[in-house]
Amino acid sequence: MEFSEWYSDILERAEIFDVRYPIKGCGVYLPYGFKIRKYTFEIIRKLLDERGHDEVLFPLLIPEDLLAKEGEHIKGFEDEVFWVTHGGREKLEKKLALRPTSETAIYYMFKLWIKVHTDMPIKIYQVVNTFRYETKHTRPLIRLREIMTFKEAHTAHSTKEDAEKQVKEAIEIYKEFFDTLGIPYLISKRPSWDKFPGAEYTFAFDTIFPDGRAIQIATVHNLSQNFSKTFDIVFETPDGGKDYAYQTCYGISDRAIASIIAIHGDEKGLCLPPVVAPYQIVIVPLIFKDNKEPLNKAKELKEKLKSYRVYLDDRDIRPGRKFNEWELRGVPLRIEIGPKDIENKKITIFRRDTMEKFQICEDELEKIDEILNDIMENMRKKAIKKFEDFITIMDYDVDRIKETLNNKRGIILIPFDESIYNSELEEKVEARVLGETEYKGKKYIAIAKTY
Amino acid sequence: MEFSEWYSDILERAEIFDVRYPIKGCGVYLPYGFKIRKYTFEIIRKLLDERGHDEVLFPLLIPEDLLAKEGEHIKGFEDEVFWVTHGGREKLEKKLALRPTSETAIYYMFKLWIKVHTDMPIKIYQVVNTFRYETKHTRPLIRLREIMTFKEAHTAHSTKEDAEKQVKEAIEIYKEFFDTLGIPYLISKRPSWDKFPGAEYTFAFDTIFPDGRAIQIATVHNLSQNFSKTFDIVFETPDGGKDYAYQTCYGISDRAIASIIAIHGDEKGLCLPPVVAPYQIVIVPLIFKDNKEPLNKAKELKEKLKSYRVYLDDRDIRPGRKFNEWELRGVPLRIEIGPKDIENKKITIFRRDTMEKFQICEDELEKIDEILNDIMENMRKKAIKKFEDFITIMDYDVDRIKETLNNKRGIILIPFDESIYNSELEEKVEARVLGETEYKGKKYIAIAKTY
Repeated sequence: MEFSEWYSDILERAEIFDVRYPIKGCGVYLPYGFKIRKYTFEIIRKLLDERGHDEVLFPLLIPEDLLAKEGEHIKGFEDEVFWVTHGGREKLEKKLALRPTSETAIYYMFKLWIKVHTDMPIKIYQVVNTFRYETKHTRPLIRLREIMTFKEAHTAHSTKEDAEKQVKEAIEIYKEFFDTLGIPYLISKRPSWDKFPGAEYTFAFDTIFPDGRAIQIATVHNLSQNFSKTFDIVFETPDGGKDYAYQTCYGISDRAIASIIAIHGDEKGLCLPPVVAPYQIVIVPLIFKDNKEPLNKAKELKEKLKSYRVYLDDRDIRPGRKFNEWELRGVPLRIEIGPKDIENKKITIFRRDTMEKFQICEDELEKIDEILNDIMENMRKKAIKKFEDFITIMDYDVDRIKETLNNKRGIILIPFDESIYNSELEEKVEARVLGETEYKGKKYIAIAKTY
Repeated sequence: MEFSEWYSDILERAEIFDVRYPIKGCGVYLPYGFKIRKYTFEIIRKLLDERGHDEVLFPLLIPEDLLAKEGEHIKGFEDEVFWVTHGGREKLEKKLALRPTSETAIYYMFKLWIKVHTDMPIKIYQVVNTFRYETKHTRPLIRLREIMTFKEAHTAHSTKEDAEKQVKEAIEIYKEFFDTLGIPYLISKRPSWDKFPGAEYTFAFDTIFPDGRAIQIATVHNLSQNFSKTFDIVFETPDGGKDYAYQTCYGISDRAIASIIAIHGDEKGLCLPPVVAPYQIVIVPLIFKDNKEPLNKAKELKEKLKSYRVYLDDRDIRPGRKFNEWELRGVPLRIEIGPKDIENKKITIFRRDTMEKFQICEDELEKIDEILNDIMENMRKKAIKKFEDFITIMDYDVDRIKETLNNKRGIILIPFDESIYNSELEEKVEARVLGETEYKGKKYIAIAKTY
């Protein structure tokens, strides 16, 4: 099955995201998908909180003049902004944009909050919906008109150095986030012609989907003083002078969920990292006739395993059907308990990642933790292997690059060379230049067909 | 100080919600306010999850024809809907509403999800922003154009009885929610002229703010088959027939946060229920000269109390200033540690609710739990006392009702009488009829000036 077909199919069958909502590029997070989203964004929230970020919530609507204040920024977004023009039966005096991203809304407030260098650093983030009037083909959780989940962080600092340090911290946070999820990535400094509108420079994380296309999954921007000059975010320096704030911002979206699905899934369906699995363990009692023992044992076991997210599946349907369902839904570990197991004081374990079945003694439950860790480790390794197989290092040769991008696909790395590093390169190779990157200690230009 | 002035002042000084955003009725949840919001909505999420509700996430945008499908419903909202009419530079073919509430979006999907009686019950909820183009005076967290936080639950059932049971369950959930927060309420069945547009009947929770005005803080609606008939949500019954789904919905908004602030606050500022306080305990070491002992003791104590949300305030400012700040911010319990306390193996406790100071032995930390429980109990009692003082029971006498509403204010209860229970009553008494209610075992008509 082709990847994009597999992807649509799994979103539907595993009940993650329902695309049948009657607006293009808008859909519904179903209970199972919502739980994956919740646990995934809990990880990034925790990482940000631990490093001194505060969660906040800004309005969705941005007045037209505010959005248009930063020239580069509005140029980058004006073709894809949704506009509110009416309230009730009245025409609004001023058009209101649905945030495509929140720099302008947030920096208007930063001006009010920042007076003196001790008011900084400010490190805030919010998890909100944002909107893009996409004219391209939309795809659930990958290219949406309503991006259901955008974690955007915004910071302000009193020195250039602090802002640069913040960029590094953001990159470290995102590394830890994707490492936790077992999602491999390449970090590139985006070329100047592809940086965030209004940024000084942009770093981006790209991963590779099973169809060999690269996909941007996170960005980190050093905004320098571009926005602070526009929004007049001036502060008093320690020596009594005046300066404009140094700013950064960085974001992660629903694509984190899309990546979990795409990178770890297989022909059987989802394969979820235990850390985000709505159920980490499903227990299936094998009930024969009136033998209640397996069910009782299962209940006992569920109680013993209550530090995990456990689902006891006691529905009155064939075990085989249950097995298929939970494999499709990617539950990392299944426990089966039948009369034989009880007799032998064992439980049967099934690992979703390797599809292996084996037994452990019923009094060795502490092994479950090891097994879950091993599942994660194995998933991570498999994902990195696939990712690295998709990386091709070669010299600059337009025909070979095009040929590789069309057949093997993936990301191509060519030794960094200033003289060819320009936007014409994209036209020549008929692909995107992801930017400058380091790979195993060497500097390259990264090229790929992208989402 | 007048209540509305106190309220605005406290939102600003305790850094809960910044109203300076440049759109009327829109504001920013600041870090401290956001935390209160987070813990408050965690309570309702937990209550809903425990009773078999699933969290989901629906799109913000609703196509015009979908919103207009249910006649009563659209009539109730059409004057206050924000409309998106343009995407980029293009005019949209179909106008899109910013959800004022999500019945129409959700029930469109219910039709796709419900085929047979075993597909039900469906019990879902989401926590989202909703929009009303308010022409009335807006107030932060009370009457917003962007309601930042709307917890809306929607259910579908295969029988009328199940829907009625669900209404009761929802009322029980909301009771538990407000009881947990120590927010007193009166539950009324709203009069037919004031029920939710499209509902069969509506129950509402009202509390009373310190200015004596009643405020609706939760609603529960039995939608019967009104929406299911419009949205064609038909299912196969157990006996092979067809029927329309029986539906309910119920909601809670930012007003829960406004109530926590308004009901428990006092002239010193916020007084937060421990369950939602961003910091349940603040530790202030009293540092004299180079004596590091209090700080070390404070750190030790913080470690011992890590099952609570504890803030160790070791800033280099006067303790008195710290005390004022944390009292303003409503931290339930403060621990002070000075050299004398250390000498006597004691710690000094300050309760925000009673403003009492006393000492406990440093090895009696288990008492903290009792004290926090006692704080909550005391806050609850105080709030109920104030609430009951605002309830006036009297016979039907228009002049006396008006006089009481203008002076003592609060809620007036008059013995239920069918013959006066109509919308003209509101004109006569120049106030709102909250509806039919039971108070201490008797049936009344509740009347109040409302927010």
